[in-house]
Amino acid sequence: MKKIATIMLMAGLSVNLLAQENDSNFPDVPGYETLKVDLHMHTVFSDGSVWPDIRVYEAVREGLDLIAMTEHLEYQPHEDDIPHPDRNRSYEIASKIAAKENLIVVPGSEITRSMPPGHSNAIFIQDANKLLKDDVLEVFREANRQGAFTFWNHPMWAYHYKDGVAKLTDLHRTLISEGLLHGIEVVNEHMFSDEALQIALDNNLTILGTSDIHGLVDWEFDIPEGGHRPLTLLFTKDRSESEIKAALKAGRTAVWFNDLLVGKEENILPLLNASLETGKLQYNEQVARVQINNKTGVTFILENLSEYTFHSHSDVIEIHPGENLIDVKTIDFKDQFELRFRVLNAVTAPKTHPEIILKVEY
Amino acid sequence: MKKIATIMLMAGLSVNLLAQENDSNFPDVPGYETLKVDLHMHTVFSDGSVWPDIRVYEAVREGLDLIAMTEHLEYQPHEDDIPHPDRNRSYEIASKIAAKENLIVVPGSEITRSMPPGHSNAIFIQDANKLLKDDVLEVFREANRQGAFTFWNHPMWAYHYKDGVAKLTDLHRTLISEGLLHGIEVVNEHMFSDEALQIALDNNLTILGTSDIHGLVDWEFDIPEGGHRPLTLLFTKDRSESEIKAALKAGRTAVWFNDLLVGKEENILPLLNASLETGKLQYNEQVARVQINNKTGVTFILENLSEYTFHSHSDVIEIHPGENLIDVKTIDFKDQFELRFRVLNAVTAPKTHPEIILKVEY
Amino acid sequence: MKKIATIMLMAGLSVNLLAQENDSNFPDVPGYETLKVDLHMHTVFSDGSVWPDIRVYEAVREGLDLIAMTEHLEYQPHEDDIPHPDRNRSYEIASKIAAKENLIVVPGSEITRSMPPGHSNAIFIQDANKLLKDDVLEVFREANRQGAFTFWNHPMWAYHYKDGVAKLTDLHRTLISEGLLHGIEVVNEHMFSDEALQIALDNNLTILGTSDIHGLVDWEFDIPEGGHRPLTLLFTKDRSESEIKAALKAGRTAVWFNDLLVGKEENILPLLNASLETGKLQYNEQVARVQINNKTGVTFILENLSEYTFHSHSDVIEIHPGENLIDVKTIDFKDQFELRFRVLNAVTAPKTHPEIILKVEY
Amino acid sequence: MKKIATIMLMAGLSVNLLAQENDSNFPDVPGYETLKVDLHMHTVFSDGSVWPDIRVYEAVREGLDLIAMTEHLEYQPHEDDIPHPDRNRSYEIASKIAAKENLIVVPGSEITRSMPPGHSNAIFIQDANKLLKDDVLEVFREANRQGAFTFWNHPMWAYHYKDGVAKLTDLHRTLISEGLLHGIEVVNEHMFSDEALQIALDNNLTILGTSDIHGLVDWEFDIPEGGHRPLTLLFTKDRSESEIKAALKAGRTAVWFNDLLVGKEENILPLLNASLETGKLQYNEQVARVQINNKTGVTFILENLSEYTFHSHSDVIEIHPGENLIDVKTIDFKDQFELRFRVLNAVTAPKTHPEIILKVEY
Repeated sequence: MKKIATIMLMAGLSVNLLAQENDSNFPDVPGYETLKVDLHMHTVFSDGSVWPDIRVYEAVREGLDLIAMTEHLEYQPHEDDIPHPDRNRSYEIASKIAAKENLIVVPGSEITRSMPPGHSNAIFIQDANKLLKDDVLEVFREANRQGAFTFWNHPMWAYHYKDGVAKLTDLHRTLISEGLLHGIEVVNEHMFSDEALQIALDNNLTILGTSDIHGLVDWEFDIPEGGHRPLTLLFTKDRSESEIKAALKAGRTAVWFNDLLVGKEENILPLLNASLETGKLQYNEQVARVQINNKTGVTFILENLSEYTFHSHSDVIEIHPGENLIDVKTIDFKDQFELRFRVLNAVTAPKTHPEIILKVEY
Repeated sequence: MKKIATIMLMAGLSVNLLAQENDSNFPDVPGYETLKVDLHMHTVFSDGSVWPDIRVYEAVREGLDLIAMTEHLEYQPHEDDIPHPDRNRSYEIASKIAAKENLIVVPGSEITRSMPPGHSNAIFIQDANKLLKDDVLEVFREANRQGAFTFWNHPMWAYHYKDGVAKLTDLHRTLISEGLLHGIEVVNEHMFSDEALQIALDNNLTILGTSDIHGLVDWEFDIPEGGHRPLTLLFTKDRSESEIKAALKAGRTAVWFNDLLVGKEENILPLLNASLETGKLQYNEQVARVQINNKTGVTFILENLSEYTFHSHSDVIEIHPGENLIDVKTIDFKDQFELRFRVLNAVTAPKTHPEIILKVEY
Repeated sequence: MKKIATIMLMAGLSVNLLAQENDSNFPDVPGYETLKVDLHMHTVFSDGSVWPDIRVYEAVREGLDLIAMTEHLEYQPHEDDIPHPDRNRSYEIASKIAAKENLIVVPGSEITRSMPPGHSNAIFIQDANKLLKDDVLEVFREANRQGAFTFWNHPMWAYHYKDGVAKLTDLHRTLISEGLLHGIEVVNEHMFSDEALQIALDNNLTILGTSDIHGLVDWEFDIPEGGHRPLTLLFTKDRSESEIKAALKAGRTAVWFNDLLVGKEENILPLLNASLETGKLQYNEQVARVQINNKTGVTFILENLSEYTFHSHSDVIEIHPGENLIDVKTIDFKDQFELRFRVLNAVTAPKTHPEIILKVEY
Repeated sequence: MKKIATIMLMAGLSVNLLAQENDSNFPDVPGYETLKVDLHMHTVFSDGSVWPDIRVYEAVREGLDLIAMTEHLEYQPHEDDIPHPDRNRSYEIASKIAAKENLIVVPGSEITRSMPPGHSNAIFIQDANKLLKDDVLEVFREANRQGAFTFWNHPMWAYHYKDGVAKLTDLHRTLISEGLLHGIEVVNEHMFSDEALQIALDNNLTILGTSDIHGLVDWEFDIPEGGHRPLTLLFTKDRSESEIKAALKAGRTAVWFNDLLVGKEENILPLLNASLETGKLQYNEQVARVQINNKTGVTFILENLSEYTFHSHSDVIEIHPGENLIDVKTIDFKDQFELRFRVLNAVTAPKTHPEIILKVEY
């Protein structure tokens, strides 16, 4: 029965995989491919509610490129039923299933400690079992010996900091100064933190957003109604392990959380420039009609910083996925001109929004 | 972290539970409450892909009243990770979670043998572990000693009968004649069988429909798009274990599968009569306007057997959930009259559709 | 301002015309093109609520091929504002606008008398004003002299026959026997009549369905929610006036009303055969998987008359627009076989449904 | 037939009126009722494409409180068919039909001249025919003698000002200084003008937004997909003619155009304050959960000006219709605090957005 049951399950799923719409595309940026990545999730092998195959199918249905399996090392609430599990097991199962899909699965572990340093993920590790050590500093050293990329999880979690404000501790400073901690979650599940973003910028940590999913992604993030899980967009030269790791260590990321984009200006600006493309300029009488093609699934909220006013909008406009038309009062016919906008639903630092220039020409 | 993680998961889920629409209501019938029941499903404790909590939340979101946990006794593909599980474990976990919801969970097991007798479920058992016996007849006897309700699973399964045609074997006849086998799945997952229905009628077995879900109900049965899993409707005096078991043994069921209702005429007719209610008769000139209130989520396909023709329909009409208006050419004004219909998407035997009478009056 | 206002209106409309989905396609049938036709409608030039341009745009948005403008000759409730209108005026305006669209507009008039003969349409006339005569028989003779195709409107209208039952009068018999009346509305707006269908069959009248729209088609027939107006499907050699008139006079029509198809068997069978196409036969174990491609926007309700039962359906199935899969229990492998169905939502006579055969083969 | 045809039309329409969802509610403000008003539209009695009844039904379906019929006085493209119409006729017909609905219809005329002064509307007039004068100043004087409220139409129209920039002329200055011109369209159909808004503020003209509909509102403004026509929100003591006129003359309006609100700060602030209501403060650990109930159909885009950061949002948030939850990091528990926001999709002057304060307390 084993074989048949698997085939039946797969058959059902593949039909549904095809049926799924994918509104979450982002364009590549100059020099880099843009990958959709979720680096934090759980299964029954720690405190999650699904077998690892579901994590693979969820990711495929949502069009992700890469996921990391990050079971808690020290927190094993299912140990009565799944005793002393091999800490690599979740990855082994998931990667085998993903091999048949266009999805990369990366091995990882969640180092699960009280504060400091709280919870951290180590991914791209060789053997999770070797991370089972008492001294947390030793765990980070072992992970780094294995070539891991490590990051601080949900630094804004009110279970650790009751006020929800991310704060760097001495232990974090040590980890960073010794090169043992490379990234930080600025978004975790339903949380976003201005303070975590500032810590990332101040300490040159890679900016990350993850789902930290324990239940079902569909339910937690309203996928059928058009929602999406928090994603890290990763700008990488190719899909090799070495380049993906290099991109993470170099901090070439942006985070997509609900309608918000978060990232360093050096990563956000190329993404915005690749996302919004102007069509050929047309005039209706002496009013310019500018076509803006938004290649993403994000509705951008833009504040007009140009010298011109618009014929159908105030100074705050929404640019929806696909084609948008903006009528611009350029007074005279112009062969070319520029529109300058502040992108209000993108942040490059707390309360700081990137500015873009769209060139319009015949 | 344990407590908080659970609370967070629960919080997320309860919001979503409320958000879910419930189009699958059926009215009670005279003398009985109508329960929505799924008696066949799997979790990681046999070959399913979810922890038992997900089965509970799926059922609650869909508005079910009762589910049975029916892990394979003999088929344990996850035994490397979950070794020699207590066969009651899936039920223990699910029932604890369901205690906080308005959902009944029933213990069960799938007796998983090659043909004959193929697979069978025993539910309302006391201890699943005691069903681990070699001789299948002994397993049925033990189940019955424990007070079980037992039924034949997917008798149309092409893995067992390559032509997909359900056929009774001598072993089944023995089980039935000894009173050890009480029901039969006429619907399993995406399959329906005329031949299984005939076997049920010929041998007075309880007619059942189940999801046999291994993956996610949402994906397998397109729940977000308005789909539903196959359900058994159970007509019971109350929600006590004894009355529910009595209803099952007495065969007081109907099956709801896609748009089809299946059941013995004695069960289908009261359900149809309770489902379709006529409003006060009105006349527009001498054409009668009949309001039919359909209290279910089923769109009924009715063939007109009355002497009258309709003013806006041919002889085959669809009665959608909620209010429907049918204009009837009664020639003269009438204080009351009857409409007679054959219900084409209900079957009481292969190719046999029940007939109903709707009384219309001022 | 005139020119600009028109351009602005047109610009707005053309955007919307493109935005409209079109689910109402029907395939051509052997030897004939299938046109979607509405032969009965009103504007402000009799008792309608729109200028003729709206009738054109409505038809274009719905993907119609041909409409007829049929203002009441004798009923002019707007005469205080539009005094003594040229009875060809509605057609003149509509045809000028339609010239820019892929839509044929045909001149017509509604001869608006009390019973007998009630209301009738004459279309393909040369000059509507010449139909303003007292003697109704003379009106029909004049229309026929002009080469008209004429038909009886809403013979089931409860304003004329209080019981809603269409009945032939002596005057109708005279009109038919003299060859002056060629068709009959079996469907008008929201009404369908078995008795009108029988009259059509008994007297070899062309079977028609029309919207008789006075207000807005979108509101009356719920177009935005996926509804459609009653349509006549016309099977014609080409789109020339002569062939269209020939097709009407030869009775090569079917009516599409809500989910119902109505027509003579000689017209319905070729349409059904062209609409449902089977894909290459596949077997899953020994169960045949039949793919049925439904090329129309109609969901067909089929009753299985074959010797085989189905693996996922009872004997009554729904075939939705697009691809459908039906698993058939053919017992053995077969290189080819036939499925026979009664089409329950098509009628070729009162309570009479056409039967079709689908051939399935490798 | 007349009576019946009307009844049939009405029957069809009233069903649909009920079916229509109404997402466009705005709350009353202190001291005033908030009316939804459209003061500019056309029918077949000038260059529109519908009989006046459709304008009434459209407004009722959209939940409007008041419309004005404003046919062109001097532009009569349908004069071949509707010769020399009584210029009050459109109002007469519409008001008779509206009497059966909960809708106020106001008489008006569009004074249709080349620039200067371009087009203007005079509403609440006594007799439109008396406005047929050569000298446009005399027309304004006559309208004012009749007690009219008058306003400048589409001052940004590129047919009059090719650059689309609204500019006051000497003639407008005269009209304003003599008290003959009272309002200005800042929004017309699909156009919005910063410059017109500035003219309104500089000259104390009433700020208006109108549909100027010629075709069908459903098509032009995508009503079935959730769109809405440009509306003027009018803050009036009651629904009497005198109070409505007083409100217009006093400039107590706001404009709702796509997702934008436009108005003088004195009108916009009370509307925003009445629209957004906070629920009882709750704390989750030391993070405040603020419930904001948005009583309108507008999604507000707010920029956080408070001292606190948020736990799930950056500084720019969207407040959707209905209930919204915002988690606020107040550091300590607070019995009450204030949130301060700039409303980015509301303008009180060009590039000027109103600021609101939401009080949160136990």
